[in-house]
Amino acid sequence: MRFADQIGRLAQQLPPFESGHVWLAGAGPGGSGTLTIEVLWAISRADAIIYDALVNPEILAFADGAELHFAGKRGGEVSAAQEAINGLMIHLAGQGKRVLRLKGGDPYVFGRGGEEVLALAEADIPFRVLPGITSALAALAGADIPATMRGFNRAIILATGHAAGAPDDLDWRSIAATGQPVVVYMGLTNITRIAERLISGGMPPETPAAAIMSASLTEERVLVATAATIAREVQEQGFRSPTLILFGEIVRLRERLRSAKAQGGGR
Amino acid sequence: MRFADQIGRLAQQLPPFESGHVWLAGAGPGGSGTLTIEVLWAISRADAIIYDALVNPEILAFADGAELHFAGKRGGEVSAAQEAINGLMIHLAGQGKRVLRLKGGDPYVFGRGGEEVLALAEADIPFRVLPGITSALAALAGADIPATMRGFNRAIILATGHAAGAPDDLDWRSIAATGQPVVVYMGLTNITRIAERLISGGMPPETPAAAIMSASLTEERVLVATAATIAREVQEQGFRSPTLILFGEIVRLRERLRSAKAQGGGR
Repeated sequence: MRFADQIGRLAQQLPPFESGHVWLAGAGPGGSGTLTIEVLWAISRADAIIYDALVNPEILAFADGAELHFAGKRGGEVSAAQEAINGLMIHLAGQGKRVLRLKGGDPYVFGRGGEEVLALAEADIPFRVLPGITSALAALAGADIPATMRGFNRAIILATGHAAGAPDDLDWRSIAATGQPVVVYMGLTNITRIAERLISGGMPPETPAAAIMSASLTEERVLVATAATIAREVQEQGFRSPTLILFGEIVRLRERLRSAKAQGGGR
Repeated sequence: MRFADQIGRLAQQLPPFESGHVWLAGAGPGGSGTLTIEVLWAISRADAIIYDALVNPEILAFADGAELHFAGKRGGEVSAAQEAINGLMIHLAGQGKRVLRLKGGDPYVFGRGGEEVLALAEADIPFRVLPGITSALAALAGADIPATMRGFNRAIILATGHAAGAPDDLDWRSIAATGQPVVVYMGLTNITRIAERLISGGMPPETPAAAIMSASLTEERVLVATAATIAREVQEQGFRSPTLILFGEIVRLRERLRSAKAQGGGR
């Protein structure tokens, strides 16, 4: 048990999780191997855990007697109101509990973590944010697509497709004009509109695009198409939330890596 | 030791690290708490570890008799040639060793991980990529700056400043035209040029900017300025590599979170 003992010693050096504090933690893309040691430690130390739909329920087995609050429904269903979640965090912290707010991915990347910590700060609740591996970058790695590659790109854009078409939506045409790859979170519902706007912003229609469903989980699926065809393909192949969609030349690296493997004999 | 035992059990469920395989792993921003469980496990299982300058040496204590190869010098110094690193990975794997290539941050985000796995694939060496928390997102979290916030942004751009000014450089003006925040990796040397191009691309000179040095380590330092003044400020305040530089309105959230805390009494 040498490894376990080392982990135990490492955990003892982490900052203490104090009563009445809220820690906002990212559980990463889903697989338990991608959890950070401080997040696992926080799960084991918490008195109360408020978790989202995108958190893999298996990791809650690390909880040691904590009360568990589920806050969030997946996909098109109505989500627990953000104000109710804020109120619950503040209420539980006010009772002197160590409160862990656990989100899929990274709490600060399209996770409303900013709104939650602002509510905590305004209520005078001490908090700390523990980053998690953001889903897009884990999804690309799992799909054999390096997020950056010399000769391909010098930036990668993480965007949300949640508000596509709304008055305050992202200017997708300007995103396309950068010539850099873009990974879209929560883009499945609005994929037709997003792809159209990227193309009208100058992205060549034949630009490769990939959709990655349930990244890092056993049910992970990857589909490769083009900017012009991705919207039809995800529909035809029945992709569901959570799905990340990547537009960009870096998608070609997946094939290149795989064919290099195959030519070598594919051990 | 309940926590340690649980971790031990979790580790036993992870994919086995086989002889002759290379795992390319991200060590995250530096602090050991942000390491993922699968990366710690890989360190403990490896026969040989090839690590970069940005890897916190403390985590190598998890190695169990592995031979350690340092590959990389920090900042302006000459780096170990990429080809030599590729050759070393292939050589050690060919000896039937479990080879761990350990990089700071995430291996696929400005880490040349793509080039390394391509070399492995071409040499018929089986590999796996273990994501790490990319430095930019950890740095923002540590500086109390949510990477995304409704009403502020719908995308975040991760860019490298390494090649600023080179013929194949990023089009910084088009980056500015998106109106979305941008975090620049390795941007310290070229910060004057980058800020100028962003401003000439339409970024208001008064846009807040932050520099974060040694994110997640005890020597972490954060400086807040504007797009117009950040280049002078990092110089005057002696910021050194590794420093991440963020341009965007989200920088204001740092002050807002801090003043909310202070008004509440700052427990």
